[in-house]
Amino acid sequence: MPAAYTELKREACEANLALPRHGLIHLTFGNASAIDRARGVFAIKPSGVDYAALTPADMVLIDLEGRPVEPAHRLRPSSDTPTHRRLFLAFPEIGGVVHTHSLHATAFAQAGQGIPALGTTHADYFFGAIPVTRKLTPAEIGGGAYEWETGAVIVERFKEADIAPLDCPAVLVNRHGPFTWGPTAAKAVETASALEYIARLARLTQQLAPAPAPLEPGLLDKHFKRKHGPAAYYGQP
Amino acid sequence: MPAAYTELKREACEANLALPRHGLIHLTFGNASAIDRARGVFAIKPSGVDYAALTPADMVLIDLEGRPVEPAHRLRPSSDTPTHRRLFLAFPEIGGVVHTHSLHATAFAQAGQGIPALGTTHADYFFGAIPVTRKLTPAEIGGGAYEWETGAVIVERFKEADIAPLDCPAVLVNRHGPFTWGPTAAKAVETASALEYIARLARLTQQLAPAPAPLEPGLLDKHFKRKHGPAAYYGQP
Amino acid sequence: MPAAYTELKREACEANLALPRHGLIHLTFGNASAIDRARGVFAIKPSGVDYAALTPADMVLIDLEGRPVEPAHRLRPSSDTPTHRRLFLAFPEIGGVVHTHSLHATAFAQAGQGIPALGTTHADYFFGAIPVTRKLTPAEIGGGAYEWETGAVIVERFKEADIAPLDCPAVLVNRHGPFTWGPTAAKAVETASALEYIARLARLTQQLAPAPAPLEPGLLDKHFKRKHGPAAYYGQP
Amino acid sequence: MPAAYTELKREACEANLALPRHGLIHLTFGNASAIDRARGVFAIKPSGVDYAALTPADMVLIDLEGRPVEPAHRLRPSSDTPTHRRLFLAFPEIGGVVHTHSLHATAFAQAGQGIPALGTTHADYFFGAIPVTRKLTPAEIGGGAYEWETGAVIVERFKEADIAPLDCPAVLVNRHGPFTWGPTAAKAVETASALEYIARLARLTQQLAPAPAPLEPGLLDKHFKRKHGPAAYYGQP
Repeated sequence: MPAAYTELKREACEANLALPRHGLIHLTFGNASAIDRARGVFAIKPSGVDYAALTPADMVLIDLEGRPVEPAHRLRPSSDTPTHRRLFLAFPEIGGVVHTHSLHATAFAQAGQGIPALGTTHADYFFGAIPVTRKLTPAEIGGGAYEWETGAVIVERFKEADIAPLDCPAVLVNRHGPFTWGPTAAKAVETASALEYIARLARLTQQLAPAPAPLEPGLLDKHFKRKHGPAAYYGQP
Repeated sequence: MPAAYTELKREACEANLALPRHGLIHLTFGNASAIDRARGVFAIKPSGVDYAALTPADMVLIDLEGRPVEPAHRLRPSSDTPTHRRLFLAFPEIGGVVHTHSLHATAFAQAGQGIPALGTTHADYFFGAIPVTRKLTPAEIGGGAYEWETGAVIVERFKEADIAPLDCPAVLVNRHGPFTWGPTAAKAVETASALEYIARLARLTQQLAPAPAPLEPGLLDKHFKRKHGPAAYYGQP
Repeated sequence: MPAAYTELKREACEANLALPRHGLIHLTFGNASAIDRARGVFAIKPSGVDYAALTPADMVLIDLEGRPVEPAHRLRPSSDTPTHRRLFLAFPEIGGVVHTHSLHATAFAQAGQGIPALGTTHADYFFGAIPVTRKLTPAEIGGGAYEWETGAVIVERFKEADIAPLDCPAVLVNRHGPFTWGPTAAKAVETASALEYIARLARLTQQLAPAPAPLEPGLLDKHFKRKHGPAAYYGQP
Repeated sequence: MPAAYTELKREACEANLALPRHGLIHLTFGNASAIDRARGVFAIKPSGVDYAALTPADMVLIDLEGRPVEPAHRLRPSSDTPTHRRLFLAFPEIGGVVHTHSLHATAFAQAGQGIPALGTTHADYFFGAIPVTRKLTPAEIGGGAYEWETGAVIVERFKEADIAPLDCPAVLVNRHGPFTWGPTAAKAVETASALEYIARLARLTQQLAPAPAPLEPGLLDKHFKRKHGPAAYYGQP
C-alpha cells in the first residue's frame, strides 16, 4: 500500500473496530470510512468481512470519482461505498462517515419517522430532530445506482431543510437505517453511539407520554452550544 | 465413532456451540443439526445437555428413516429430532437445521403472527414475511408423533404458499418458536441470529407505527438479490 | 460449624452464587435456601451481604421452628427467612426455595397479575398460569410477622386453587416479586431463571396480541409431561 | 495535591468509576462528587474525560463558594459542578451527589413524569414517589447560571413538598435526567443504580396495568423502615 495512506487506513480500521465495541453491529451490518481531503481519497471497510479479523491492510481506498486507488487490492469495498462517496462530495466539512443498522435508530427508519428532540441528551449531540429521508422511487432503487441514490436522498433532505451537516450529523434513511458523520471517523462513531441512545430514549419517552412536545428551543440551544461552537465550555480546553 | 462422520459431528457441534455465543439460548432450549446428504445421515445435539460441556463426540447420528446410526451411543438425541428429520426430507436443498426459543421470534410465534418485512435488514436475509404455521390439532399433539407433526405443519405451510425454502429460510411454529435452516448448519445459525434481530426490529417498528405497510417489493427484491443468487454483489467473490 | 451441615451449606451457597450468574440479581436483592429434611434444618443466605464475597461458611442454619442452629454465628439470616420457613413447612416435597426481584416477573407482581401460559416454553416448566397472591392486609404487614405472613398468603393461594407445588413451582407475591422452589435448591434457581424468561416472553406476546388466548390444554399437557413425571422423554435417562 | 484531600479524591474517583460498572453511563455522560464537610470542600469528576482513564489525581476540588481549591489543577471540573454545589449547600445531611443520564430514569425525566412507588423494591430505597422538577424558565436557562439554577429547582421541589432529602435521595430534572445523593458518594451511586432499576420496573408495570394504584402506605412504610432508621432489621448490625 502507498505509505501515504497508512494513517488513513489505520483511522478507518479503528473506526470500524469501534462499532462492535459500542454494541452497534449485528452480524456484518455496518461500515465506517475516513477521508483524506488533500488527496480526495477515502478508506472504507471491505464488503461482508467479519469485524473480528479486520486489519488496516483490509481497508479499501476509493477516490472521489469512485475509482479504486489500489486496483490490485484483494478485497471489494463495502457495497455502500457510493453512499459514503455521495456524502463526502456534498458535505465538504466532514471527515468520516458511519453506517449501522443499530436497533432503535433502525426502528425509527423502518417506521419512516424522524427522532424528535425530547431532552438534553439529544441536544448535547444534535441541534434539532434527526431527519428521515423520503422513500426512494422504484427507478432510484432499480436503476443500477441504488447506493448512490441513497446518498442523494440524504443530501436532498439536508438541502431542502437547510440543515448544516455538523449541526445535525445524523440521518435516517427511510426503510433502511442510520448514517452519521463528523469531523473525523472517530467522532462519527461516537455520534452513531449517541444516536442509538437518543433513539432508545425517545421511544421510551413516547411510551410514557404519547406525542410529547419537542424540547424548548432555549434548552436545545443551551445544551448544543455548551458542547459545540465558540462558546462551548464542556470538556477540557 | 465411524471416522466417516468425524467432520459431520464437528460441524453439528460447532453450530450448537455458536447458538449461545449469538445470545439465542436460554437454559438448554434449542438445538442444531447438520446432514451428510451422500450418506443420508444427520448429526444432532443430545437431549437436555448443557451447552458448556458439549463435544463433537456427544453428537447423535440419525439416518433419514429415523434410526440411530450408532445404537450403542450413550446419549439420546434431542427430543426435536423428528422435526429436523421431516425438514431434511422435505427440503433437499438444505444442509442444516436450527431450533431456538429466542426471545422476540418466540413472542411472534406465541402470538400466532408472522414477521412482516418492514425494512432492508429483513430483506437482506428473507425474501418476504416470515410465515407462521397453523396450530397443531389435538390428534397431532397427542397421537404419539408430536415432533414429526411439528415438522409436517412447517412443510405444509411452505407447500401451500409455494415458498422456496432458501428464499425464506425460517418459520415460526405457532405457540412454540422458530426453526431456521440453510445450505450449511453454520448458515442456519447465522439465519437464526438474523431472525431474532429482525423480529426485535419489527416489534419496535410496530410500536412506533401501528400497522406499518410492508416493504415495497422493489426494495425487498433489491436487498435480497444484492446478497443472494446470480446477481449478488455483496461480500467477496 | 457442625460437619453434618457442610454439604447443606455448600448447596445453599452454590444456589445463591448461581443467581447473579443467571442475571436475576440487582444490588443485594434475592436469596436462596436449601433444606436437610432428615434434620429439619435449612441453610440460607445472610442478610444484605454482597454476592461477590459469599462463602459456604456465611450461610445461616435455621430449624423448622425458626431457631438458629448455631447461635454464635456472626451473621444474621436473610430478613425473608420466615417466608422460606413457611414454604418448607407447607410443601414437604420441596428441597430449596429462591426469592428474587427479577425484572419481568417482578413487574407482573407489581401489576398484581399472574403470568398466563402462552407458549410451549412456559409449558416446559409450569403446568398452568403462574398465580399471584392476594395483597397482605395492614394487620399482616404491620403485626410483627410480615415475612411469615408473606409465606402464608403463598400457601393460602396454592391451597385454595389446589395447585400441587411441583406442578407450578413459582408464585408472584402481590406488589413484591417472585418465589420459586424445587426438589433441590439448584432446581429452584433454574426455575427462577425460566420464570423470568417466560415473564418476558408473556409481556412481549401481550404487546403483539392483546389478550391472547391461553395455551391449548393438550399442548400444555404434552410439553409439561415431556419433561416431568413417569412418561417424560426429554433429557437423558 | 494537599495531602488532606487524598482520601476525598479517592472516594470521589471510586464513585465515578463505579458508575460504568453499574451500567449507568453512556459515552461520558454522568459524574459523581464527594464532600469533606469539615473543610467545606468537595471533589468532582473533570469535564468530558473518559471513565477508562480516570485517576484520583484527576478529581477537581471546589469549595462551597464555588472557588477552585487548587487553581493550578490542569483539568476543568464537570460543567454540572454548580448543581452539585447547590445541593451540598441546601442538604447538609448529604455526603455525595451523583448525576447520570441512565436510560429509564432519563425517559421519565424527558416525559416530565415522576416515578410512582409501585412495589416493595421501590420502597426498599425511597419513601414515596420520585419527584420531577418543574421546567426551568428561559431566564434560568439563558441567564448565565444554568447549572446553578438546575440545582435551585431541585431544592425548590423538595422544599415545596417538604421531603427530607434522605427519605427520597433522588430527583428527576425535567427534560434532563436524574440526580441522586446519600450519606456518602458510594451510597449515592448505589441509589442511582436502584433508581434506574425501579424506573425500569415502573415502566413495565405501567405497560401491564395502565395507571396502577400507588403502593399501599403500610407496605411502603414497612419496607422503607425495614432498611432505614432506628427500627431497621435488614442487613448486619
